[in-house]
Amino acid sequence: MPQPRKLNVELGERSYPIVIGSGLLGGDFDLSGYLNGTDCLVVSNETVAPLYLETLKKNLTNNNVHSINLADGESFKTMASVESVIDTLVRSHANRDTTVIALGGGVVGDIAGFAAACYMRGVGFVQVPTTLLAQVDSSVGGKTGVNHPQGKNLIGAFYQPRLVLIDTDTLQTLPDREVKAGLAEVIKHGVICDAEFFAWLEANMTALIARDADALAHAIQRSCEIKAAVVSEDETEKGKRALLNFGHTFAHAIENCLGYGEWLHGEAVAAGMVMAAELSDIDQADRNRITALISLAGLPVAPPDIEAGKLMTAMEMDKKVQAKQLRFVLLNSIGDAYLTREFSEARLNEVLQRGDGRT
Amino acid sequence: MPQPRKLNVELGERSYPIVIGSGLLGGDFDLSGYLNGTDCLVVSNETVAPLYLETLKKNLTNNNVHSINLADGESFKTMASVESVIDTLVRSHANRDTTVIALGGGVVGDIAGFAAACYMRGVGFVQVPTTLLAQVDSSVGGKTGVNHPQGKNLIGAFYQPRLVLIDTDTLQTLPDREVKAGLAEVIKHGVICDAEFFAWLEANMTALIARDADALAHAIQRSCEIKAAVVSEDETEKGKRALLNFGHTFAHAIENCLGYGEWLHGEAVAAGMVMAAELSDIDQADRNRITALISLAGLPVAPPDIEAGKLMTAMEMDKKVQAKQLRFVLLNSIGDAYLTREFSEARLNEVLQRGDGRT
Repeated sequence: MPQPRKLNVELGERSYPIVIGSGLLGGDFDLSGYLNGTDCLVVSNETVAPLYLETLKKNLTNNNVHSINLADGESFKTMASVESVIDTLVRSHANRDTTVIALGGGVVGDIAGFAAACYMRGVGFVQVPTTLLAQVDSSVGGKTGVNHPQGKNLIGAFYQPRLVLIDTDTLQTLPDREVKAGLAEVIKHGVICDAEFFAWLEANMTALIARDADALAHAIQRSCEIKAAVVSEDETEKGKRALLNFGHTFAHAIENCLGYGEWLHGEAVAAGMVMAAELSDIDQADRNRITALISLAGLPVAPPDIEAGKLMTAMEMDKKVQAKQLRFVLLNSIGDAYLTREFSEARLNEVLQRGDGRT
Repeated sequence: MPQPRKLNVELGERSYPIVIGSGLLGGDFDLSGYLNGTDCLVVSNETVAPLYLETLKKNLTNNNVHSINLADGESFKTMASVESVIDTLVRSHANRDTTVIALGGGVVGDIAGFAAACYMRGVGFVQVPTTLLAQVDSSVGGKTGVNHPQGKNLIGAFYQPRLVLIDTDTLQTLPDREVKAGLAEVIKHGVICDAEFFAWLEANMTALIARDADALAHAIQRSCEIKAAVVSEDETEKGKRALLNFGHTFAHAIENCLGYGEWLHGEAVAAGMVMAAELSDIDQADRNRITALISLAGLPVAPPDIEAGKLMTAMEMDKKVQAKQLRFVLLNSIGDAYLTREFSEARLNEVLQRGDGRT
């Protein structure tokens, strides 16, 4: 068994490690040092809990473990779910030394993290992401929260976990579609700030799709390193962190128009990245490489068939809208992104009208 | 017109001023430097808005002002109220440059502050407290949140305002009962860490009850100074800040048993302080001075008629319970408090049985 890979998210007194490897969930990595007291609440969902809750409990034999299983899906990323987690904390007489452990994908992590942030104004929190998307993106960096009927992630908190524990074994039970959706964010990390990693992905995409363990572990590690570096510089998204939203203004609009959960988040990000590349003033060759890699990953390279005006309205409501002006993350080249309010409106209109007829 | 009094809450990059004086609401203090953009949402309630919303708007003539008036009372300090504030922010297309302004007492400030903390993971926040209780206590220090049916302030965030603007003119319309309730927290500040201020209160309680403007301004300033100093040392209540909870473990139990809003928070704190003094190993003379000052302020010096067992159960659920052990803030003497898990259980039982027959 190779040693787990380990890296740190540097945030002063809120710093925490990300540990990546095989067999960690069941005890190859000792969780106890990251729990304040003996009490913990494992927040999972109806899909993940039957697969991994008992395994995780083997790592918590000295603890008083409560658990709650949420309904599965983005449509349940609501305040009602947060309140059900808080009700469970209250019922189990949780106190400030209780630790909330998120076992699941991004939705579970976002709900559990926000509940941990709010309960008694903040209790301990550990992320155990079980989807590729959560492992390379949402579990790292402290963004927690839920959707509002009018917009994605409109309600939430910046709340850092004490530990992110990534057991790569969990990827073996993940549906193909979700592996691909996770690869969208992996590709994004290469596109925005690491041309070398982008080239590595071009060479290794087939291995990743085939779930080659070493290839996945490297992709997860490099993604976490990139995200951790960006978050360390800008925890609360005053500047550089916004680069991680490459493709996301379009993606959130797609998700909002289709209804959350219709497309997976990563699928919407994939289409959004192609759209952002089209809006960028870059070499056509770079644009083609981005589209080709996304296509190789089996992800959509155009938005679904939604009227341009509807996408525009959804984008204006999106939370990245600041002072009523749309902002986009655009590219100078692969590996070099920037945030701007300056873009061609004509080209934006073209980009919004490229739906491929699928819904 | 005397110059406004001004002090700072020192919290590094989250530092902010508290400004105290007459006529500030209507424009004698310029708010504009504390708003990020032009948009703001004034959160008030049905009692305060008719009295002061128009006055405040005179100070916001260059802004795009939205407002929401909540129902008045502790029973509305709920997630439902927070969600109604967030819905209003969404409807007014609020963005990250929007500022939430709380105009009202502690309940309004707690709800508005938590909504500001959660909306888009945090927008600007300004406190304009209009009750004495809010001016000397709840508006300072960044505690925001709402009640859960099972316990007070179980859901919330530490979220600092950019400014606390205290217009002492607002106290002229405050009911007597609420002035007295506010004095409970003023007295608390003297009891826990300033014997000299305690003596000043003994000499000036009559003037305070009569709403003497200078006396009130001094009491507010000194209270804010004490609270600001404690909060600066311990923003998230890992240690010293807990001293501000003197009397509060009892008070929360009283409020929980009676139902929130039956007694005012300050009234419950008054009784709770007498109970904490009784549980403390101090000179009887000090105990008598505390009881006498609270009585002079027209506040209750004993809990209402609640069965001791019920109070005990409520205390165990209270969020100050850590690792399942009750903690109390007790006194060595007037002006010298400490946090402890060590106390006489026998004496606690006696103290809990001293209800005065009132409900």
